[in-house]
Amino acid sequence: MATAATASAPACVGNVGVGFDVLGHTLEGPGDRVCVRRVAGRTIRVEAIRGVVGELPRDADNTAVAALTSLRDALGLDHGFALEIDKGIPLGSGLAGSAASAVAAVIAADALLGTQLPPAVLFAHALAGERVASGGANGDNIGPSLLGGLVLAAEGHLLRVPVPAAWRCVVARPHLALLTRDARAVLTAPFALSDVVAQCGRLALLLAGCACGDVALVRSALRDVLIEPRRAPLVPGFAAVKAAALESGALGASLSGAGPSVFAWYEGAADAARGAEAMQAAFAGAGLPSDLRVSPINGPAAAVIALD
Amino acid sequence: MATAATASAPACVGNVGVGFDVLGHTLEGPGDRVCVRRVAGRTIRVEAIRGVVGELPRDADNTAVAALTSLRDALGLDHGFALEIDKGIPLGSGLAGSAASAVAAVIAADALLGTQLPPAVLFAHALAGERVASGGANGDNIGPSLLGGLVLAAEGHLLRVPVPAAWRCVVARPHLALLTRDARAVLTAPFALSDVVAQCGRLALLLAGCACGDVALVRSALRDVLIEPRRAPLVPGFAAVKAAALESGALGASLSGAGPSVFAWYEGAADAARGAEAMQAAFAGAGLPSDLRVSPINGPAAAVIALD
Repeated sequence: MATAATASAPACVGNVGVGFDVLGHTLEGPGDRVCVRRVAGRTIRVEAIRGVVGELPRDADNTAVAALTSLRDALGLDHGFALEIDKGIPLGSGLAGSAASAVAAVIAADALLGTQLPPAVLFAHALAGERVASGGANGDNIGPSLLGGLVLAAEGHLLRVPVPAAWRCVVARPHLALLTRDARAVLTAPFALSDVVAQCGRLALLLAGCACGDVALVRSALRDVLIEPRRAPLVPGFAAVKAAALESGALGASLSGAGPSVFAWYEGAADAARGAEAMQAAFAGAGLPSDLRVSPINGPAAAVIALD
Repeated sequence: MATAATASAPACVGNVGVGFDVLGHTLEGPGDRVCVRRVAGRTIRVEAIRGVVGELPRDADNTAVAALTSLRDALGLDHGFALEIDKGIPLGSGLAGSAASAVAAVIAADALLGTQLPPAVLFAHALAGERVASGGANGDNIGPSLLGGLVLAAEGHLLRVPVPAAWRCVVARPHLALLTRDARAVLTAPFALSDVVAQCGRLALLLAGCACGDVALVRSALRDVLIEPRRAPLVPGFAAVKAAALESGALGASLSGAGPSVFAWYEGAADAARGAEAMQAAFAGAGLPSDLRVSPINGPAAAVIALD
């Protein structure tokens, strides 16, 4: 019987502009790692938090703890877990760090226990973790993290959407933290029907454009009129960064998750490299240092990386 | 040179519940026919209106006249058209009669002139016709009528969505007319974010479910929380008719277009036949006689039927 399991889960671009709360895709590069061990008693305790974030809750408000509590209770386990969390995703970056810790925890626990739970069950437990972090329970980060690539998560279904392998995503992360709860507060005003119709149609077009590899469809579709206008004022330099992305050939650009990171999609790696420089320069122009990622839109899935 | 052309255009289920203003599909059975002839001068005049509707406007408020005016002006024609309109689609039924007359008119004129205009151009002219009828310019009826089958019409793009050939749509049309303008008036109150998210996700799932032939996805998706609750009170018996459809195995049911017709989707012809009877009985229970159509969801496209 295994005594410890470690899993990694990738960063994600949530919402993807027009897929608020239902669409996301993963990113290559640093993610979160969680190591899980059995402990006597039903306690779930965090023994270490390392990496880019030191100040995370260690109690029930920790997303990994909440996810494992859900798993333990559903399986009726008579033992608990000890966790070590290595954060590769900065807090409040809009890159789905809270989801990644929750997903890595359930993937690791599933391997440790040998339960081979189906994705829909792992999804439900990870979502219980996400709920304590964001105040909502949306699957646009958990779904992609579990399946990899671009995933629609709606009505309990997870659908992986095909995307051309060459397509790239650039993410520019300014050194500025936004809390998802704060970014949700600006969304309380009611929405106009015309904006709702535009958003629904664009989400559908975006998925069709990805599945068919049709850049004209994606360019028409990847324009968020519903959420981005309300959140953009929270991110200094957003308009300039988006403009820089589009001028460098992006298919579209918007906030990643609740922000402040900005993502842009490109047809290929050369465009993406130029776009990344332009986006970083635009953030610098607004007085914000930033770091960059360039990844296939078809990013990796969470995975078990050690089982001892 | 041809002297007269006649085209037919099918009835449509607009909105399809969760695709408000962007999704529709055509129906087998009676549609509208328009015969177009050249006349000297630039006038566009209606010479006859026959069929199930006698009381249509004959001036610029006629959708076929408005569509041909748009076509004539765009092509810079030095002549006009005389029209004869055979209505197979009752006015105010929610089966897209106004769109059908506009589409049949532009298809017939295109054949008469030999211009072979691409669908996107025919779409724009037919939409000019739709605009005078509904007060809006949405393509969820024009798009399907032009291409046939289930069509997403958004941001100027028309995408035909594959649907299993066996799937059927039942439409129960109560003998009661609703004006689209009146049905739009109930949509002015603002929309909650949670309903918007549900609707966007369900539209995306519905299209995926159709493309993959996955009935579980369609059952999850074909539930409109945004528009139907506001319009249903305008249609006596709606709740009972929808319940009858679902009890008879429908994948989902909602208002066709702005109503009062109610549509339901079924996996096959036998289910659909049982559902049709149940839906008609439910309307009768609410004191409304109704008539029925059963059609493949992959219904026909508009077509030229005579060129002399």
